[in-house]
Amino acid sequence: MTVPFTARHIGTDAAAQRQMLDGLGYDSLDALVQRAVPASIHVAPVRDSVIPPAASEAEALAELRGLAALNRPARSLIGLGYYDTVTPSVIARNVLENPSWYTAYTPYQPEISQGRLEALINFQTMVTDLTGLATAGASMLDESTAVVEGMLLARRASKSRSDVFLVDADALPQTKALLAHRAAALGIRLHETAYDQSPPPEDIDVFGAFVQYPGATGRVWDPSEVIAAVQAQGGLVVVAADLLALTLLRSPGSLGADIAVGTTQRFGVPMGFGGPHAGYLAVRAGLERQLPGRLVGVSQDAAGHPAYRLSLQTREQHIRREKATSNICTAQVLLAVMASMYAVYHGPDGLRAIAQDVAGKAVLLRDWLVAAGHEVLHDDFFDTVVVRAPGRAGELVELARGRGFQLWFRDSDSVGISVDETTTTDELHVLVQAFDGQDMRAFAVATETAVPANLRRDDEYLTHPVFNTHRSETAMMRYLKQLADRDYALDRGMIPLGSCTMKLNAATEMAAVSWPEFARVHPFAPAEDVAGYLVMIEQLESWLAEVTGYDAVSLQPNAGSQGELAGLLAIRGFHHARGEAHRDVCLIPSSAHGTNAASAVLAGMSVVVVACDEAGNVDLADLRAKIAAHADRLAALMITYPSTHGVYEHDVLEITGAVHDAGGQVYVDGANLNALLGFARFGDLGGDVSHLNLHKTFAIPHGGGGPGVGPVAAKAHLAPYLPSHPLAQRAEHAGGFVFDGGPVSAAPYGSASILPISWAYVRMMGADGLRDATGAAVLAANHIAHRLQAHYPVLYAGAGGLVAHECILDLRPLKEQTGITVDDVAKRLIDYGFHAPTMSFPVAGTLMVEPTESENLGEIERFIEAMIAIRAEADAVAAGEWPADDNPLVNAPHTAESVVVGEWAHPYSRERAVFPVRAQMRSKYWPPVRRIDNAYGDRNLVCACPPPEAFA
Amino acid sequence: MTVPFTARHIGTDAAAQRQMLDGLGYDSLDALVQRAVPASIHVAPVRDSVIPPAASEAEALAELRGLAALNRPARSLIGLGYYDTVTPSVIARNVLENPSWYTAYTPYQPEISQGRLEALINFQTMVTDLTGLATAGASMLDESTAVVEGMLLARRASKSRSDVFLVDADALPQTKALLAHRAAALGIRLHETAYDQSPPPEDIDVFGAFVQYPGATGRVWDPSEVIAAVQAQGGLVVVAADLLALTLLRSPGSLGADIAVGTTQRFGVPMGFGGPHAGYLAVRAGLERQLPGRLVGVSQDAAGHPAYRLSLQTREQHIRREKATSNICTAQVLLAVMASMYAVYHGPDGLRAIAQDVAGKAVLLRDWLVAAGHEVLHDDFFDTVVVRAPGRAGELVELARGRGFQLWFRDSDSVGISVDETTTTDELHVLVQAFDGQDMRAFAVATETAVPANLRRDDEYLTHPVFNTHRSETAMMRYLKQLADRDYALDRGMIPLGSCTMKLNAATEMAAVSWPEFARVHPFAPAEDVAGYLVMIEQLESWLAEVTGYDAVSLQPNAGSQGELAGLLAIRGFHHARGEAHRDVCLIPSSAHGTNAASAVLAGMSVVVVACDEAGNVDLADLRAKIAAHADRLAALMITYPSTHGVYEHDVLEITGAVHDAGGQVYVDGANLNALLGFARFGDLGGDVSHLNLHKTFAIPHGGGGPGVGPVAAKAHLAPYLPSHPLAQRAEHAGGFVFDGGPVSAAPYGSASILPISWAYVRMMGADGLRDATGAAVLAANHIAHRLQAHYPVLYAGAGGLVAHECILDLRPLKEQTGITVDDVAKRLIDYGFHAPTMSFPVAGTLMVEPTESENLGEIERFIEAMIAIRAEADAVAAGEWPADDNPLVNAPHTAESVVVGEWAHPYSRERAVFPVRAQMRSKYWPPVRRIDNAYGDRNLVCACPPPEAFA
Repeated sequence: MTVPFTARHIGTDAAAQRQMLDGLGYDSLDALVQRAVPASIHVAPVRDSVIPPAASEAEALAELRGLAALNRPARSLIGLGYYDTVTPSVIARNVLENPSWYTAYTPYQPEISQGRLEALINFQTMVTDLTGLATAGASMLDESTAVVEGMLLARRASKSRSDVFLVDADALPQTKALLAHRAAALGIRLHETAYDQSPPPEDIDVFGAFVQYPGATGRVWDPSEVIAAVQAQGGLVVVAADLLALTLLRSPGSLGADIAVGTTQRFGVPMGFGGPHAGYLAVRAGLERQLPGRLVGVSQDAAGHPAYRLSLQTREQHIRREKATSNICTAQVLLAVMASMYAVYHGPDGLRAIAQDVAGKAVLLRDWLVAAGHEVLHDDFFDTVVVRAPGRAGELVELARGRGFQLWFRDSDSVGISVDETTTTDELHVLVQAFDGQDMRAFAVATETAVPANLRRDDEYLTHPVFNTHRSETAMMRYLKQLADRDYALDRGMIPLGSCTMKLNAATEMAAVSWPEFARVHPFAPAEDVAGYLVMIEQLESWLAEVTGYDAVSLQPNAGSQGELAGLLAIRGFHHARGEAHRDVCLIPSSAHGTNAASAVLAGMSVVVVACDEAGNVDLADLRAKIAAHADRLAALMITYPSTHGVYEHDVLEITGAVHDAGGQVYVDGANLNALLGFARFGDLGGDVSHLNLHKTFAIPHGGGGPGVGPVAAKAHLAPYLPSHPLAQRAEHAGGFVFDGGPVSAAPYGSASILPISWAYVRMMGADGLRDATGAAVLAANHIAHRLQAHYPVLYAGAGGLVAHECILDLRPLKEQTGITVDDVAKRLIDYGFHAPTMSFPVAGTLMVEPTESENLGEIERFIEAMIAIRAEADAVAAGEWPADDNPLVNAPHTAESVVVGEWAHPYSRERAVFPVRAQMRSKYWPPVRRIDNAYGDRNLVCACPPPEAFA
Repeated sequence: MTVPFTARHIGTDAAAQRQMLDGLGYDSLDALVQRAVPASIHVAPVRDSVIPPAASEAEALAELRGLAALNRPARSLIGLGYYDTVTPSVIARNVLENPSWYTAYTPYQPEISQGRLEALINFQTMVTDLTGLATAGASMLDESTAVVEGMLLARRASKSRSDVFLVDADALPQTKALLAHRAAALGIRLHETAYDQSPPPEDIDVFGAFVQYPGATGRVWDPSEVIAAVQAQGGLVVVAADLLALTLLRSPGSLGADIAVGTTQRFGVPMGFGGPHAGYLAVRAGLERQLPGRLVGVSQDAAGHPAYRLSLQTREQHIRREKATSNICTAQVLLAVMASMYAVYHGPDGLRAIAQDVAGKAVLLRDWLVAAGHEVLHDDFFDTVVVRAPGRAGELVELARGRGFQLWFRDSDSVGISVDETTTTDELHVLVQAFDGQDMRAFAVATETAVPANLRRDDEYLTHPVFNTHRSETAMMRYLKQLADRDYALDRGMIPLGSCTMKLNAATEMAAVSWPEFARVHPFAPAEDVAGYLVMIEQLESWLAEVTGYDAVSLQPNAGSQGELAGLLAIRGFHHARGEAHRDVCLIPSSAHGTNAASAVLAGMSVVVVACDEAGNVDLADLRAKIAAHADRLAALMITYPSTHGVYEHDVLEITGAVHDAGGQVYVDGANLNALLGFARFGDLGGDVSHLNLHKTFAIPHGGGGPGVGPVAAKAHLAPYLPSHPLAQRAEHAGGFVFDGGPVSAAPYGSASILPISWAYVRMMGADGLRDATGAAVLAANHIAHRLQAHYPVLYAGAGGLVAHECILDLRPLKEQTGITVDDVAKRLIDYGFHAPTMSFPVAGTLMVEPTESENLGEIERFIEAMIAIRAEADAVAAGEWPADDNPLVNAPHTAESVVVGEWAHPYSRERAVFPVRAQMRSKYWPPVRRIDNAYGDRNLVCACPPPEAFA
């Protein structure tokens, strides 16, 4: 009998837990958590759980293989923004399957993130080069949400006060649906128009327009006149462009576009039944400070060496709350890295060759179809041919399916066929023959593309050496290794980031993501071809519903922020359906994540802030006052439980009751679910809807800053308003609920290909294991708080002086006493071999520490000892042993170069600088740069690859 | 169209090759190679090659998936030394699928191999603990060859002059076959005896005895009396023991055994249709210096810190040629690492729990069978139950197959069933029900084992902290990462080891090794269940035959040395069959790999050395003289082509002709095939038989020191004497040849699970690509020779001053002029970020450099510049700039500790010590230890894990 997975996932064994409990004075884990969690919200372990008893790793893999086998392998020619692609094996193995990449966190500590920051700046350079625009962000969630962000950017940057946005009639259907749903909440009116049939209407004022390039039907046309016409009215134009097509087609920038968006999926990222993929958004000069999401820039470190960092960063705590223009606070880093490396590996010539091959095969397909007597929609196209087949479309789709192909049933009269880099001419021949039984092989093979001469690209792109160096697999493997070596991820040590829940991402959980049965699946494939996915999704929905105390779950949101938005839009839908559209006020405690307010704004709500008391709890009196003040307009309260202060509020039932009494709905932010699972349920706290973070509580890796998955879970009365999708395989979800809200992601099930991770996590933990994990996480946090209390005061605590799954160390007294800042401590932790805890959130001048259940006592103690040693170093500064401006803390982190090259002029030794702990001499993480100058980077915004000479 | 794989595999593109050719003064690659390779042996590219045109990576993967699908997934209960096992995902992902582990070389440069050396010393400790013996080596090729090595060890250590070796009648059938074949060549007489029925015969003198424990039929019995009886006669006893069983059973050491052998396969290493797996061999105190193969020991570095190294190392150049006692010169490092990590992860308690579970299920199976009316062979057993079913065995096997189980058809009257850690009681129930249709589930579940009380183990094992620390996956992942970080592998940079061919091991080539359809396959499964393997093997056989100019190929030898032995045994078989058994002299040039002579000895031949001339070529006059001197006894000549001196001998046809004229056979050592493929063929040179090294020329990774695969290829007249196997699925091989020599490996197709690597390599290169690779490899070697000639004389060159695929740099003048040794240069290369070339082989005081075709010009130039810079440093020593005993060369390599801690008392700067090249400040490999003291390690033989305090 192999050890159960829980014993592999949870870092502390019984002996270690006993030792920690003794220190805290509790008899058992259960006694500790029961004391910490208010008695009023305890739940007994679920009987007859829908979650099966914990499977072993081997059993879970076998079940996953069974589910995979239910997905029918088919060759997708559906297109619509998703194309089969060849993931270079060197990238799959060394990025997607390498914990050094996928277990990293968002690069908020840039000194220990230079590897992925370089990969992201490669991504940005790739996007700006191909789109012909000035600046691109570090990736968006998907193409359709990027179009929405483009629309919002156009609105805020446009001088026009119009509320009308023009939409291309030939846009992707999912993008149209997303625009409609999102625009409705914001009072934006959409006006759909067929640009090819009529120029933009001059009789209506617009703040912007959207162009799909090439169109969903494959048409390649010149939008420059449309763009100029919209701009002449003061509007901005958003162009969604296919990056592969752009290797042959004139760039959006050269056509005059203000904003370009799209997906980078076909650059080596598997379709994965819809995601995750990296969307992109690029803007012309002048709009860069309007960019939503993250942007990587070049600054310099304390030695004056170039160093990468996040510029204009937006994360929860940086989002401008109710003044926010976007709720995007994450990226799709792992996928952006993959797509950028695809470009690095193929280079401009390789990409162009792939595009020409695709375009040539599309022409061949067209020629064969025409020769066989078919009519096609467009003469000019890149990779997509739409066959006009009046009344026969369904028949053609079925004929193709009989040969293993999936086509796009556009309507009963037309069928779309999209060619990609994996399509072979043999396959196209089989397909055309299936339609008519003719043997076309003797027909001359076309070598030209169907790109019109006036749209052929003639400028250079991807000229930077990074795209022209790593052509052999050996060179590519080493480049990936070099970058990974610069970064600190979970494979090196603890990342005790409060609110981020950096737990184990087990290799077994990750395995199925790589399997072709899950990877090479189009999101709009017929239901019978994706039966394995649908079974897995329904199971996961039901499991998540049970553990949170809700009735229905949608897995569609592909980030926590999107889950929030979906939940608030559900509340909005609910009020509207009841004729209470006037309910538009959202109460949010001052301690909340900034994203909460941003999402509320994007759901069309007005944010009213509720005060918190000194203990970090919601101020009940203020809450009641605010409810009274906005009673008739009260739409919702958003609270986080346990609170962002890391404590279990004891008044939560009173809080939610008060909101319900006033006709409001309660949104419980699921960010801190890792402190609750198995002991209490959001649904039982009075929550009506929540989002969860599968990339926190449910073991999806952070990928260096994405992907995330943010399912939205709700009570039955809100279920009808949860996200639907026009191309979903089925409307029904676990529990028999039919969702009818609009979509919030481009794909019906969002980032489906990483759902096996959370499925495997729950399957291997079982309900009891999930509860055990919560207990271990809460114990570890309390152990750290207890051990560090004498050195750093712990801010906020609940019953029994206990914290939840994280603790806030107050470093403000330290600064007062010694001058040493939170930043100094965070950077000094790098020298000790740690990733810093969360800095200055939710309270400035603090560190929020969340060890999670996956760390063992040895690593926890190593962290505690480092923190104590750093405190002693700070005290030495205060004692005058070292000057305030020259000590190991303010100079941290120390690179190898800094202790090796030149004279050593500091009042402490080289050894203390880089080996503060003796064991590091056998095993040391070396930061590649010294402390990075943020102000310099802000003043000098450089967001593309610097020339190699910069590093000379 | 994606870039062809050849352009990914070959590091130099057309422009780089042009640049190098210009420097050398050749118009084309072809012109260069045609000049270097003697015209008399040129071959035109094969027309109508059996090798299909090169496939893309995606196409090759698709074909491999097709082959995988032909392997029928079945549950093996066959046993016989191969058991299904659960490879922990954390080990699969972070070792087996991580290039940092699998692309490393054998740890001959211990300073940059501390990670895998630690893993190997864990392996040795695991084996000594479980076997209860004093010393274990760093792994053997498989259990059966380890038994042979045990027999040979017994013979040389025994005081008895007898030539008789007792063999357990209950030994594994493949072991019996291997013993018979190997003993015959060495004049050892085997005497098989059933120990349980009669004690060792007292009437015959024996030098040793072999005991299978537990027996092949599963029997557990106490061999201590047998052991004592043999020892009383002066014989040594070899016990083959199952490591998992040893967690419950008394150890061989405690029973008095001198030598224990076995396999560690079931410790998490997939069956893989037979291999590769790590065999083991352990000996009692007093025999440690008799150990064949490799042994890791603890020494100390220049700072006095403990450091691991190979002790008593045996490699080609260390093997004692004709005085050799074994031809084993490699290990199965990657698999030994996996097996040791399985023990590290499970620990003693976990292993014992697995064993108890297995033993309990075996008892359950027995009880169910008996309850159903069956008779079983033994009362005492661990995991295997043999059913006595007179006349019904075939029927039972078929009934089981109908339910998806594979059993052991022992003979027509009995069937073997072996339980492993993956077997479930449900499965056993299905199986028993298949036999008789009875529902057994109500039958009480046994909890006891069938291990007799007197054999139950009561001593402790695996008490070292390393086996009791890394229990969580997080901890295990970090331990593996920490170890990998200490090592230098191909993912960091070039490993220009002459004669080792460290080329790219592409991720696509590696992919299929992980697939369950190839991994979870028993080597003795029925042919119809392994059709995919058999098709792949036949294709690979035919491809290898064509490119080498031979008729038949056996893939059975699982190391180059075993291929050599198989080839020589084939020659022996040929002479014997023709009534010329007296032909037993093997001519070997003085320049040959030491293994050649060792293999010849083990094939029962007498070695006669042939001189070489000053240019490194075989001395034709001496050859003719030796042939004349031994004309009637001439069995074979062994030559390496191109020679070990890295040049193409021009007289090769004369040489082989002379041997043939005298009735001898020609063995061409394939070590240097990478210099020839596509331009000449061994068969056309006059070779009758060769071994190839798939881990050199055909892209199987070196795995840190194994696995290797050494196919033997021969002309048709030798085919009947190539290796067969008593349990092979089929006797016929590609070309229709039936092999009838005895086996040289435990499994019919040797290390079958890594054959997809070479298959994919050939499939993606195509015949033209293989030729291109040869050209690129030869060009790169000549470029290095040309560029370094002015700084280090190049020893040996052929026509036009050209070398083959490697060049020998003569450092003896450097030593004379500056006092700097080969060792100093090799260690200083570490500071520059390189693995040293091969040291002092084939000529003492030289470095042999082989860049292979996979390195790009940038990396090649980086190496050249490092070598030139080191030459300048040596000159500075000669010029008196630095003292002879304190300079960057003699102090190399420099650790971070050495430049950080304490005062710097050297006459050169810290910067020069560790950053001799400025670019290293951004990317530096830090060796974890300073130069290791070999003499100290030899004097103080410590071959198990040192206590943690040693590192304090």
